[in-house]
Amino acid sequence: MPDPRFFPVAGPFTLADLAEIGGAALSDAADRTRRMVGVAPVEDAGPDQVSFLDNTKYVAAFEASRAGACVVRPAQAGRAPDGMALLLSDDPYRAYARIAWAFHPAPRPEPGIAPSAHIDPTARLGADCRVDPGAVIGARVEIGPGCHVGAHAVIGDAVEIGAESRIGAQCTLQCCVIGERVILHPGARIGQDGFGFALGASGHLKVPQLGRVIVGDDVEVGANATIDRGAGPDTVIGAGTKIDNLVQIGHNVRLGRGCVVVAQAGLSGSTRVGDMAMFGGQSGMAGHLTIGDGARVAAKSGVFRDIPAGQTVTGIPALPVKEFWRQVAALSKLAKRKGDR
Amino acid sequence: MPDPRFFPVAGPFTLADLAEIGGAALSDAADRTRRMVGVAPVEDAGPDQVSFLDNTKYVAAFEASRAGACVVRPAQAGRAPDGMALLLSDDPYRAYARIAWAFHPAPRPEPGIAPSAHIDPTARLGADCRVDPGAVIGARVEIGPGCHVGAHAVIGDAVEIGAESRIGAQCTLQCCVIGERVILHPGARIGQDGFGFALGASGHLKVPQLGRVIVGDDVEVGANATIDRGAGPDTVIGAGTKIDNLVQIGHNVRLGRGCVVVAQAGLSGSTRVGDMAMFGGQSGMAGHLTIGDGARVAAKSGVFRDIPAGQTVTGIPALPVKEFWRQVAALSKLAKRKGDR
Amino acid sequence: MPDPRFFPVAGPFTLADLAEIGGAALSDAADRTRRMVGVAPVEDAGPDQVSFLDNTKYVAAFEASRAGACVVRPAQAGRAPDGMALLLSDDPYRAYARIAWAFHPAPRPEPGIAPSAHIDPTARLGADCRVDPGAVIGARVEIGPGCHVGAHAVIGDAVEIGAESRIGAQCTLQCCVIGERVILHPGARIGQDGFGFALGASGHLKVPQLGRVIVGDDVEVGANATIDRGAGPDTVIGAGTKIDNLVQIGHNVRLGRGCVVVAQAGLSGSTRVGDMAMFGGQSGMAGHLTIGDGARVAAKSGVFRDIPAGQTVTGIPALPVKEFWRQVAALSKLAKRKGDR
Repeated sequence: MPDPRFFPVAGPFTLADLAEIGGAALSDAADRTRRMVGVAPVEDAGPDQVSFLDNTKYVAAFEASRAGACVVRPAQAGRAPDGMALLLSDDPYRAYARIAWAFHPAPRPEPGIAPSAHIDPTARLGADCRVDPGAVIGARVEIGPGCHVGAHAVIGDAVEIGAESRIGAQCTLQCCVIGERVILHPGARIGQDGFGFALGASGHLKVPQLGRVIVGDDVEVGANATIDRGAGPDTVIGAGTKIDNLVQIGHNVRLGRGCVVVAQAGLSGSTRVGDMAMFGGQSGMAGHLTIGDGARVAAKSGVFRDIPAGQTVTGIPALPVKEFWRQVAALSKLAKRKGDR
Repeated sequence: MPDPRFFPVAGPFTLADLAEIGGAALSDAADRTRRMVGVAPVEDAGPDQVSFLDNTKYVAAFEASRAGACVVRPAQAGRAPDGMALLLSDDPYRAYARIAWAFHPAPRPEPGIAPSAHIDPTARLGADCRVDPGAVIGARVEIGPGCHVGAHAVIGDAVEIGAESRIGAQCTLQCCVIGERVILHPGARIGQDGFGFALGASGHLKVPQLGRVIVGDDVEVGANATIDRGAGPDTVIGAGTKIDNLVQIGHNVRLGRGCVVVAQAGLSGSTRVGDMAMFGGQSGMAGHLTIGDGARVAAKSGVFRDIPAGQTVTGIPALPVKEFWRQVAALSKLAKRKGDR
Repeated sequence: MPDPRFFPVAGPFTLADLAEIGGAALSDAADRTRRMVGVAPVEDAGPDQVSFLDNTKYVAAFEASRAGACVVRPAQAGRAPDGMALLLSDDPYRAYARIAWAFHPAPRPEPGIAPSAHIDPTARLGADCRVDPGAVIGARVEIGPGCHVGAHAVIGDAVEIGAESRIGAQCTLQCCVIGERVILHPGARIGQDGFGFALGASGHLKVPQLGRVIVGDDVEVGANATIDRGAGPDTVIGAGTKIDNLVQIGHNVRLGRGCVVVAQAGLSGSTRVGDMAMFGGQSGMAGHLTIGDGARVAAKSGVFRDIPAGQTVTGIPALPVKEFWRQVAALSKLAKRKGDR
């Protein structure tokens, strides 16, 4: 059960309530008035808790679970242990998320400006903002209503931040325009100089970086991730894109809407990405590429060519996924046959 | 010689002292009363300094060394230059470490709370803690005796920290329980939201992250490393595990005791690791894997399957190490034979 | 056009001025007295703006550009649209950089010490330094004239920083000596303990890290990059070397002059690199290697052997570039022929 020191709990909710909250259908046998007090992982949940089954790796745990209720796909319903109420959904992870938010609503930061915050007199903050100790807010900064600026965050001159955004502790922002409901986790770095040099034996001359970072609404940026500002064009992160920890986004990159960039991936300068593309952990994309809508790059891959819309690639250099696995199999066979070495 | 501005020196110590401190045997020819004033690398050490030889890449430097004494395996003793006193040990690196600590004891932070620290009145600090300027310590935080909280570190509500731990400057901690004698280097991020979304064309719905991070005793976490809190289960770092800079640990990961995770490696969500496993630099582990005790993953590898206890793997996708090198050899031969391209 | 909220603009300049500033030759047809008001990317530039063409991927954009003037190689001059003034240069990126600096001179930080900065009374700051809110400057620190220490940066005892260096917000510096005109971007970590342990089943014993980090003049270090101090020898970054975001430099590494290390690359402990070597994004170098002057490591490569001067390598394990591509071709052919799997 979530540790109440960190996660205060709402509820309880009846199974009928939870079905409605989650957009799920309650199984026929279930008692609609039965009350649940919280959520828990399928291995740990007890009779008054709700869990979920999404990844089929956990079917055995589901079959053995003591959870009072579980969000599950209709196809898995037959494997439920006796007495478990089922909340049937074609998207159980999403239904679970809605239910978990009901038990643990996102805390709204209590408005207030810490006395130790450093706020330039020309900065403008909307209503109901919270600014934590030591935060630095520069000249002409504009922050929309309901924002939370974490401790020691440093927001450079003239930065704009939309309503209800959360700037984590110790983030730094420069030369950027941030949308609404954006979440930046601690230590994210937005808008510093891109890595641009005119290289040469007599010394590498720094090229001025004159673009911005434009971050769309509902974007999330992970801890210690870095997004450089453009060299001339802007660096753009489309609305709803989710970026994990320690990701690097180079100058002039344009990511479309709803992309997902998993931890430690990197996109080099000037690469343009369509909507809903996915980049696995530790994948790397060369610069100046065009990557289509819905393209998927497997973890660890190295992409050196454009990717058409909808294609999944893997490997270094990245290949269409079937081709990659065919090569893996061929090499394995070759090495075995030869007993080489 | 260590720069005395940064590393104040204790001693001198006689060779007899040093043999005892290091758990080493002094070579017969050595004068037990001879005094050493410090440690130095084998290339730089002079007649009143102690060095060590561990990696055999440095045997030539050892043969030419002017060090007064050297910690060395008995098997290498014959290669020592004339006049060098030998401190014989089967684990020369460990013996050297003990000797180096004697010359340069770990500084104990001077107790005291900086006036500019922000400490919630409900937080409790043990005896002899040091809190540096600007540190933020939230409500109901509990910190054991003898801890050092670095400048501008931000410790969220209800976090627990065991005795004698060192929280580096500008670390952020949320929703976590930290053991004793833990060292967090600057900029480490512990306990922020894991990367959990119910993905979908209509928008990626954030899934509440309701677990904690549990960090065992004697753990070390490198600069700018990130450890996300669990989604429901906890993220757990076993006692004595050492994590290098810029490492990513995803939600729900469980690392056993005494593991080593080298710089820029990443473990994806829900992967479970036994004790004493080793992960090379820039290696990446997919999610939901089981990795056995003592498994070893070579640098740069990408692990997409479970690893049995004791196995060493390498490559992308990772293979048992012999199989990998057999494939490397087979491919090399094939390419040479064909003169392909 | 660069957003004037973030990038105040100087000028205008005549084409004759700009030719001189950029070290470029003005095309014969151009009106030397025509005035330009700023720089812009080739797709966006208007008739009173200057752009440049370097990467041939953008020739089509150049041909369609409305830019009033463009810096370009003589070989591309024939493709310019009618009426565009040409600034001819064999190094158009460098010429453009000089012109862009003329329009947007690097802002000199206004001298002054924020009242909330924590400066030890024994620290010495040169003339005309700027220290932002919350910065912590330890005992016996020496900072040269004209430096800028960003908000909340933490500079440990006895650190030295040369003239006109810029320490970004929230950097941490320990046990290091920093040259002149060095730029550290936000969150860079310099001088923390290297990752040194005497490993063993009874516990990994921390080895004292007794070296420093020596950073040469004109070095740039990216956001959230980490450079560990030496274990005994120093970690050394040669003058003019440029290090991108999220790079890891292990203890005892020595980088020569004018090297380039792209984002998320890592160099393991004790590797020594000559001058003007280049490391692509996400490349990784094992420890204890010797890498010659002008060596080049492609993005994503894993280097486990020494590299001779001037050689370009790629792959995991890294091979000379031709050999790598021969293997890629051979494997592709093999997999196709077999229709394996």
